[in-house]
Amino acid sequence: MSEEFVVTPWEVRGRVDYSKLINQFGLQLLTDELLERLRKHTGDLHLMLRRRIFFAHRSLDWLLSEYEKGNMFYLYTGRGPSEHIHLGHLVPFILTKWLQEKFGAKLYVQITDDEKFLFKPLSYEQVRKYAYDNVLDIIALGFDPEKTRIFLDTEYAKTLYREAIKVAKKITYSTIRAAFGLGESSNIGQIFFTSMQAVPAILESVKQGRNVPCLIPLAVDQDPHFRVARDVLPKLGFYKPAIIHAKFLPSLTGEAKMSSSEAEAAIFTVDSPEDVKKKIWNAFTGGQPTIKEQREKGGNPEICSVYQYFYFLFEPDDRKVRELYFKCKQGEVVCGDCKAELANRVIAFLEEHQKKREEARDLVDKFMLRD
Amino acid sequence: MSEEFVVTPWEVRGRVDYSKLINQFGLQLLTDELLERLRKHTGDLHLMLRRRIFFAHRSLDWLLSEYEKGNMFYLYTGRGPSEHIHLGHLVPFILTKWLQEKFGAKLYVQITDDEKFLFKPLSYEQVRKYAYDNVLDIIALGFDPEKTRIFLDTEYAKTLYREAIKVAKKITYSTIRAAFGLGESSNIGQIFFTSMQAVPAILESVKQGRNVPCLIPLAVDQDPHFRVARDVLPKLGFYKPAIIHAKFLPSLTGEAKMSSSEAEAAIFTVDSPEDVKKKIWNAFTGGQPTIKEQREKGGNPEICSVYQYFYFLFEPDDRKVRELYFKCKQGEVVCGDCKAELANRVIAFLEEHQKKREEARDLVDKFMLRD
Repeated sequence: MSEEFVVTPWEVRGRVDYSKLINQFGLQLLTDELLERLRKHTGDLHLMLRRRIFFAHRSLDWLLSEYEKGNMFYLYTGRGPSEHIHLGHLVPFILTKWLQEKFGAKLYVQITDDEKFLFKPLSYEQVRKYAYDNVLDIIALGFDPEKTRIFLDTEYAKTLYREAIKVAKKITYSTIRAAFGLGESSNIGQIFFTSMQAVPAILESVKQGRNVPCLIPLAVDQDPHFRVARDVLPKLGFYKPAIIHAKFLPSLTGEAKMSSSEAEAAIFTVDSPEDVKKKIWNAFTGGQPTIKEQREKGGNPEICSVYQYFYFLFEPDDRKVRELYFKCKQGEVVCGDCKAELANRVIAFLEEHQKKREEARDLVDKFMLRD
Repeated sequence: MSEEFVVTPWEVRGRVDYSKLINQFGLQLLTDELLERLRKHTGDLHLMLRRRIFFAHRSLDWLLSEYEKGNMFYLYTGRGPSEHIHLGHLVPFILTKWLQEKFGAKLYVQITDDEKFLFKPLSYEQVRKYAYDNVLDIIALGFDPEKTRIFLDTEYAKTLYREAIKVAKKITYSTIRAAFGLGESSNIGQIFFTSMQAVPAILESVKQGRNVPCLIPLAVDQDPHFRVARDVLPKLGFYKPAIIHAKFLPSLTGEAKMSSSEAEAAIFTVDSPEDVKKKIWNAFTGGQPTIKEQREKGGNPEICSVYQYFYFLFEPDDRKVRELYFKCKQGEVVCGDCKAELANRVIAFLEEHQKKREEARDLVDKFMLRD
């Protein structure tokens, strides 16, 4: 398997080596010590923290110091609406919801319809349709309607654009070229876009007329936006936002990131039980070609997408997930069993999620910010 | 005197050769024939047309054909609010008002506060202050409050940004680099900005959900924006906007364009009678060093800023302006007389304008479009 990988906000390719990525992006490792400090305030740690699915950060130590001094933070995360939402997209939102509950924090969710229009061969109407479709999934996760505000960039542009030009004035084309690999043939909306993505990191400060710390849970491919923003925002008198970075839920075909462009590689929140069964049945695993060999040699959970689904989302019990790992290694479980069990859990999750997703239709206007 | 000159939306330098500019920009000359065709609909021709202060166009013939078929157009012009308004800035607005009266046309006036913030060393608050100051001058010219809508880009960004990204998606960085001379050290707001300036050229079409022809009276330095826009808008299914291009009112110091950066070179609409007298008294003329020499050799009205002020704005009678030209050439008038007469007329104009400018304060909200 190739050692090369590429991670940008618009492309993830190859098998991502997260240790290398930490160096490449200049991230801080999420240490035991820092997580212990977090646990003092939260009582426990979400499995995505315990298991280092969130594996890196920027300035989380600073954010906790501010919190400990009584300087409360708010949360910001987002979604680029180019497709239905799949399970991988839920990862940052699930941790964000946990953080909101534990800290009672206000949250902004930015739906970057402008970005997806500018970067994908989609019409504005298509992007808008996905934007409101994706909003249902986000609301369905149970965010606090009093403390959570969701907006589409194009519907909140009066507020965003005025701040975005202040950010943009501090960012040269050559910075964007270096940070994002954009170039001569990039369209000028793509070049400008990072200014819009930076704004929610200062939005609460702008609204309150004083500096408010901001914590951004995100998938690590979005980091380049905030590497640039963290350089610029202090020049405008704002704090640098703190960030915690998630790994990608692997695709069912064994790729590093579950891609929406291959329907078979991802489980979408709108999939039927039959879809789920079929996709999981066809999933790439770390198993041996035959049951006999599996029993003799054991499997490879490290490369198994089914195991990763348990690890990221579907086995909350740390002891059980560790057991599964060793049982697989020792050939005590076979792929068929794991697949059947995972399918059951995913189907149960989606049944509940889809119910809440339908209920969310009546809540949309309560959550949305529009100019 | 140098033959070299530079005309971009952000810089006008040197003595502009308008014939060369027509070739350089690829404009059409405003011909007698086309003006006659216009006169059939307007009854007469504004002095700025008769005297070719508006000297070039794009697609005005097409616009008139559409009008003759019953396809009514609307007007769009604008202002970059980086300073108080001076007399040179009024030129496109004065013709625009005449066109509105003659055709009963709807008008959008774009105040590009974003542009001036992005291109000038000004804070957003400074630009905003000038924006509302400049709006008073525009209203004072007497536009129809029922048919005229003025907006600041940042206050109308929800409407504008959604359309601007559609324009931006069709414009590459390399196009912008070539058209505007922007580059590596340009900020990313500057690179994006032309997308915002293109939107009013389709705004009425977007609002009406059908193609509406658009005519843009502008100072010729703004043409590069619409050269790009005219390439892009048909790809989005819109008409190319028609344009008529004005020359620059020369500065009182003899430069090609009256620049706001030198206070002595321009007469601002807020200047006092004393300011006006002093500035005109110090103006660069085409006169001889002594009255005796002036009587003997005659002056040079071609290079005289005082003469140009009469020609552009302050001598409506074509016969009289021609007379003045020949009297100057033959030494029958001396600079002191011309200056005194011009000062009287400018002071009388400003007295009236400043009165209307104060009255305009109560009309602002009636004219403004805000999201």
